[in-house]
Amino acid sequence: MKGHALEEQTVFEEEQPVFEIGVVVPKRDEKQEIDNENCVDVLAAEFRKMGLIVERVVGLQNEILKLAAPLAILGKAAAELQLKKRTYIGVDLQFEWDEIDAFIRQPDGSLFSWHERLLCYHHMLYGTVNVDNSIMLKFDNKEVYWEMGESVLRKLELEGIVKEVFPLHDDVMRKQLLKIWALNWWDFTKQPIDEICSYYGMKIATYFAFLGMYTRWLLFPAAFGLILHLIDFGSLQLFVLPVFFVSLVMWAVLFFQFWKRKNSALLSRWQVNQAPGAGREHKAFDLEWSLFQYPSELMKKQGSDKIIEKEVYQREEWLRRFMRYRNDFVVILSIICLQLPFELAYAHLYEVVTSDLLKFGLTVVYLLAIQYFTRIGGKMAVDLVNREISNNIEYRADSLVYKVFGLYFMQSYVGLFYHTLLHRNIMTLRQVLIQRLIFSEVLENLLENSIPYLKYSFKKYRAVRTKRKGERGSFAGKFPRVEKEYLKPAYSASISEELEDGLFDDFLELALQFGMIMMFACAFPLAFTFATLNNITEIRTDALKLLVMLRRPIPRHDATIGAWLNIFQFLIVMSICTNCVLLVCLYDREGKWNISPGLAAILLMEHALLLIKFLFSHIVPEEPAWVRANRMKNATHAQDMCSRELLRTISGGQKTFKELVKNE
Amino acid sequence: MKGHALEEQTVFEEEQPVFEIGVVVPKRDEKQEIDNENCVDVLAAEFRKMGLIVERVVGLQNEILKLAAPLAILGKAAAELQLKKRTYIGVDLQFEWDEIDAFIRQPDGSLFSWHERLLCYHHMLYGTVNVDNSIMLKFDNKEVYWEMGESVLRKLELEGIVKEVFPLHDDVMRKQLLKIWALNWWDFTKQPIDEICSYYGMKIATYFAFLGMYTRWLLFPAAFGLILHLIDFGSLQLFVLPVFFVSLVMWAVLFFQFWKRKNSALLSRWQVNQAPGAGREHKAFDLEWSLFQYPSELMKKQGSDKIIEKEVYQREEWLRRFMRYRNDFVVILSIICLQLPFELAYAHLYEVVTSDLLKFGLTVVYLLAIQYFTRIGGKMAVDLVNREISNNIEYRADSLVYKVFGLYFMQSYVGLFYHTLLHRNIMTLRQVLIQRLIFSEVLENLLENSIPYLKYSFKKYRAVRTKRKGERGSFAGKFPRVEKEYLKPAYSASISEELEDGLFDDFLELALQFGMIMMFACAFPLAFTFATLNNITEIRTDALKLLVMLRRPIPRHDATIGAWLNIFQFLIVMSICTNCVLLVCLYDREGKWNISPGLAAILLMEHALLLIKFLFSHIVPEEPAWVRANRMKNATHAQDMCSRELLRTISGGQKTFKELVKNE
Repeated sequence: MKGHALEEQTVFEEEQPVFEIGVVVPKRDEKQEIDNENCVDVLAAEFRKMGLIVERVVGLQNEILKLAAPLAILGKAAAELQLKKRTYIGVDLQFEWDEIDAFIRQPDGSLFSWHERLLCYHHMLYGTVNVDNSIMLKFDNKEVYWEMGESVLRKLELEGIVKEVFPLHDDVMRKQLLKIWALNWWDFTKQPIDEICSYYGMKIATYFAFLGMYTRWLLFPAAFGLILHLIDFGSLQLFVLPVFFVSLVMWAVLFFQFWKRKNSALLSRWQVNQAPGAGREHKAFDLEWSLFQYPSELMKKQGSDKIIEKEVYQREEWLRRFMRYRNDFVVILSIICLQLPFELAYAHLYEVVTSDLLKFGLTVVYLLAIQYFTRIGGKMAVDLVNREISNNIEYRADSLVYKVFGLYFMQSYVGLFYHTLLHRNIMTLRQVLIQRLIFSEVLENLLENSIPYLKYSFKKYRAVRTKRKGERGSFAGKFPRVEKEYLKPAYSASISEELEDGLFDDFLELALQFGMIMMFACAFPLAFTFATLNNITEIRTDALKLLVMLRRPIPRHDATIGAWLNIFQFLIVMSICTNCVLLVCLYDREGKWNISPGLAAILLMEHALLLIKFLFSHIVPEEPAWVRANRMKNATHAQDMCSRELLRTISGGQKTFKELVKNE
Repeated sequence: MKGHALEEQTVFEEEQPVFEIGVVVPKRDEKQEIDNENCVDVLAAEFRKMGLIVERVVGLQNEILKLAAPLAILGKAAAELQLKKRTYIGVDLQFEWDEIDAFIRQPDGSLFSWHERLLCYHHMLYGTVNVDNSIMLKFDNKEVYWEMGESVLRKLELEGIVKEVFPLHDDVMRKQLLKIWALNWWDFTKQPIDEICSYYGMKIATYFAFLGMYTRWLLFPAAFGLILHLIDFGSLQLFVLPVFFVSLVMWAVLFFQFWKRKNSALLSRWQVNQAPGAGREHKAFDLEWSLFQYPSELMKKQGSDKIIEKEVYQREEWLRRFMRYRNDFVVILSIICLQLPFELAYAHLYEVVTSDLLKFGLTVVYLLAIQYFTRIGGKMAVDLVNREISNNIEYRADSLVYKVFGLYFMQSYVGLFYHTLLHRNIMTLRQVLIQRLIFSEVLENLLENSIPYLKYSFKKYRAVRTKRKGERGSFAGKFPRVEKEYLKPAYSASISEELEDGLFDDFLELALQFGMIMMFACAFPLAFTFATLNNITEIRTDALKLLVMLRRPIPRHDATIGAWLNIFQFLIVMSICTNCVLLVCLYDREGKWNISPGLAAILLMEHALLLIKFLFSHIVPEEPAWVRANRMKNATHAQDMCSRELLRTISGGQKTFKELVKNE
C-alpha cells in the first residue's frame, strides 16, 4: 500500500500532471496584435510564478487555462491555510510541510483529499495579489487596472473576462470508475466507495453508500411483498397483512440503526473526527467558490479570546431560535393554508369527474400548476433560510431541506391520504400508487438523465454553429475535450442553486419513494419490488450522470446524510399511523367499526400530543449556547497550543518506524 | 474570591485540621500491658509517616483514628494517582504539584473537590505497604504478620481489626448548611447548590438541583389544578379538562428540556468535561471503597497500545448486547408472568370484596407480600446486573435502575390501570389516588426519616448499656461525637447496598410520584397541589436526613440524573396514552363510543409499534464499539502526550497574571 502510494506520487509529480482546475476566458480576437500586457498572459504568468503547471487550450469560443499543482505547492498552500489533518496518533493537527510523515494518507495513497486539494487551489488562485504598483491589463479593447492588494482572478471575474473557474474531470480516474462502477452490471449493489470518495468527495460517496445499503436491505421486503402478492393464504390472509406490516416497521427501524453504524465506520475510515449526530460546527461547505469557509477562519472566529458571557449568548441564542421558529411557522402555515386546499381540491375533483378526457386535462393542468408552485415555494424557502442568522452553511442546507421536503410531502401524499381516509377506496389508491411508482421510475429516471444531456448537446451544437458562421467554411473542427466539459451542466439542485447541490434531488427522490412504499405498504405490498428494481437502475443512472453528463461537482466536506436521516425517521413514524388507518379501512368493510366524532377527536389529540412530545424536545436545545461556545473554545485552544510540539514527536516516530522497516 | 480562598487554605493548613476520614478499631483492653508492636500504634505511625495528621479518640466501645491531610500531602497523592484536573485554558490535564497555579479551584476556593480528596485519601491509606521484612503486629492477644508488599490497612481489615473506614462530617460546614439550607424555611425552593456540591459531591447536589427546579415548575400545574378543582366552568367544563391535559404535556416536555439545559450549565460550572447524554466512560463511582475506579487505571485500560481490531470488537460488542438483552428479556418476562397476575388478582379482589374489614385485611396481606416480592425482585435484578460483562459501574447502576423501576412501575400502577380500564370507575380511582398520595406524603416521609433515627438511637442505647454493664457504676459518660457518627446508618439504597446509594430511593419516590400525578392527571387534577406541598417538605426532610441522621455519604463523580431522565421521559409518553383513555371513559358515560375488538386490536398494534420504533433505536448502538474505542484511544493518547508541555505554559501564564494584579 505504502510503496504503491509513493510510486503514484512520483508519477504525479514527474511524468504527467493531472490538471484539476479550469479557468475559462473568452478566445482572443486573432486579428488583434499580440500585446505584452494581455491579461490572460499575465494571469498565466502569475499562476506559473506560484509554481502551478499551466496548459493553455484554445477551443471554439473560449480559451481554457488548465491548472495542475505539484504536491509541494499544494503542501505550501495547506500550511498557509492552517489546514487540520489527521495524524498517525489519531489527532487532527495543523499541516506542516516539514512534518509530512506525521499525517495519514488517503485510502488511495495521496496526501490530500480532493476536498483539501480544492481548498488549496482556491487559496492559491485567489491569493495572487499585486504587491507592486497598479498594473494596466488589456484584453482585446478593454483596459483593466490591477490595483495593489487586489486579487487578479477576482478582478478579472468582476470584469467578466474570466468566465468561470471550475474543477476538471480526471480522465484516467473517470474511465476507471466507469468500468468498475457505472458499467459494472454484475454485482448489482457493490460499489467502489473508497474510489468514489477520493474522486467525488465524502458527501457523494456517502449518498452512494446509503443507496447501495438501502437497495440491499430492500430485497427482504421486496421478496416478502412478492410472496404476499403471488400466494393466496386462504383463511390466514387476514393475519398475513398485519404480520407484514409489523415486520416492515422493524425492518425499517433496524435498517436506519445499521445505517448509522455503517456511517460511523465510514467516518472512521475517512478519518473524520466526528460522531454522527454530534455537533457539526467545523465544516467547510463549498458549493460556490465564494462560499468557501476555511477551517482556520472558522477557528479564528470561535477561538477569539474574549470572555464568553452567559447573558449575551443566552439572548442571542433565543433571538436566533425565535427567528427560526417564526420562519418554520410561516412555512407550515403557508403549506397548510395554501397548498393543502389546492391539493385536496385536485384530489376531490379527480374523484368527482367522470369523463376520462376531463381527468386527463385536469391532471395536465395540475402537473403544470405544481411545477410552478414548487418553484415559488422553493424560492420562498431559500429566502427564509437566508434571513436566518447562521454562519453554518451545513445547518442552512439542512434547514432548507426540511422546509422544501414539507412542500413535497404535501404534494406527494395529500391526494393519497384523501383517497384512503375519506373514500376508503383501496382500489383507487392502488391504481394511483402504481401510476406514481411507474411514473417516478421510468419518467423521472429518463428525465433526470436526458435533460442534462439535451442541454449539453444544444450548447455544443450552438457553439459549433456560431463558430461555423464566424469562420465561413474554414472550420477546422478543433473542439477540445476541456471546452466540451465547460459546456456540461453543473451538478445542481432543481430547487435552488445557492444552498444545495444535485444530491438534494437524488435524496428527495429516495425519500419520496421510501414514504410512498412505507406509508401505503398494506395497500400495495408489491411496491417494494418496484422500488428495488428502481434503485438497482438508480445506482447506475446516477453514476453515469455524474461521470458522463455533468461537470465534476465541487466536493462537500460532510460525510453524513444529514437532515435526510431525520426525514426518513419521521416517515417511519408516519407509516405506522397510516398503515393502521389502512388496516381499519381494509378490515372494516361493513362499516361496523363505527368511529364516533368524540373518539376520533381524542385519538387525534393523542397522536398530536405524541408528535408534540417529540417535536418539543427539539425546540429547547439541550446545551445552552454559552456552554457549547466555552467547550468549543477550550477544545480549539488546547489543540492550537500543543500541536507544534506534538507534531514533531509523531513525525520523528514515524520516520524511525520507516527506517526500521527499510533496514529489515 | 481569590483572597478568601487563600485565607481559607492557610486556616486549613495551619490552625486546625479538618478531619475527613475515620478509621474504626475496637477499643483496647486496658488490662493488657502496653506493647510496642500494637498494631493500632503501628497504623497511626504509618499514617503520620505519610504526612497525615492523626487524632486518636477513644470512645465507649471503639477507638477511632481521625485523619486529616495537609494540602501538600493531598497534592502528592493526586500527582501519584495521575488525577486529571481542569486547567485555566479549559483542558483537563494530569495534576502536578509544581504547576499548581495552572489548575482551576473549586467554587469554594479549595483546590480539590471532596471526591478528589477522597480518591487521594484512599490512595494514601491503602498505599502504605511494607517495604522491609515481615513485621509482627499484635492486637490484644491476636498476632498478625504484615508481609512485605502488603497494605497494612487492607491486612487489618481482613483480620477484622479495622472495623470500618468512613468519611467524617465536617462540623463547621455541616452547621452552616443546616442554617442556610435545611432549616431555611423562607425561600422554599432556593438551595445553596454550590455548597452542597462541595460538601456532598456532584451527584447529590444534582439531585437537589433537580428537586428544587421540579418543585418550582410544579407550581404552575398545581395552580391550574387548584383552579380546576375550585371553579365550576359550567358548559365549558367539557373543554377545560383536555386543555389542562394538553398544557400539562407541554409543561412536562419543556420542563425536562430546560432541566437538560440547566444540567449542562451545572456541568460547566463544576468543570466537568462532558455533554449530558454523551458517552459517560471516564467516571469513578465509588459506593464502596473497593469499588473505587481510578481515572488513571481506566486510562491505562483503554489507552493500551494494541491495535484495535474491528472483528474482535464487533464480536465482543454483540456478545455483551446479547447477554444484556437476555437479561432484560428475563426481567420483562418475569414481571409480566409473575407480578402482573398477582397485582391484577389483588385489584380484582379489592373490587369484589364488599366487607370493609376484609378489604383492610387484604390490603395488609398485600402490603406484606409486596415488601417480600420487591426484595426478591431487587436481588434478582442485582444478580442479573452482576452477570453482565461491563466494567463501567455507572452503566451497571443505570441498568439496575431500569430493571427495578420496572418492578415498582407494575406495583404502583397496575391496580390503577385496572380500575381505569376495566371498570371505568373514576370515583374509585380518585379515592385510591388520594389514599396513595397522602400515604406516600405523610407515611413515607415519616418512615424515611424515623427509621434511620430509630436505628441510630437503638445502637447508641445498646452501646451505652453494654458499657455500663461492663464497668458497673464507674461509667464516665464519655461518648465522643465521632463514635456517635460511626453508629449512624450509611446513605444506602433499600434495594441493594452494592450498586446504588440512597439517591436511588429518593429518585424512585420522585419518579413514582411524577408517574402518579401525570398518568392520572385528568382523573384528579388536584394531585399536583398535593405533590407540590410534598416536594417542598421533601427538600427539607431529605436535607435534614443527610445532615443529621446519616453518615456523610461517599461522593459519586457523576453530575447527571442518569437513567432517571429516560424514565421520566417514558412516563410522559405513557401519560399521554393513559390520559386519552381516561378522557374516553370520562366523556363516554353512555357507552356510545363503542370500541369494537377489531378497532381495539389495531389501536393496540399501533401503540405497540410506536413503542417498538423507539425501543429498537436503542437495540443497535449507533457507533460500533471499535470506532468508539479508536476515538477514545486517540483522545487519551493526545492528551497524555501534550499535557506536560502545555501545563508549564499555562502555569507560567497564570503566575505572570497574578503578579500583574499584585503590582497594580
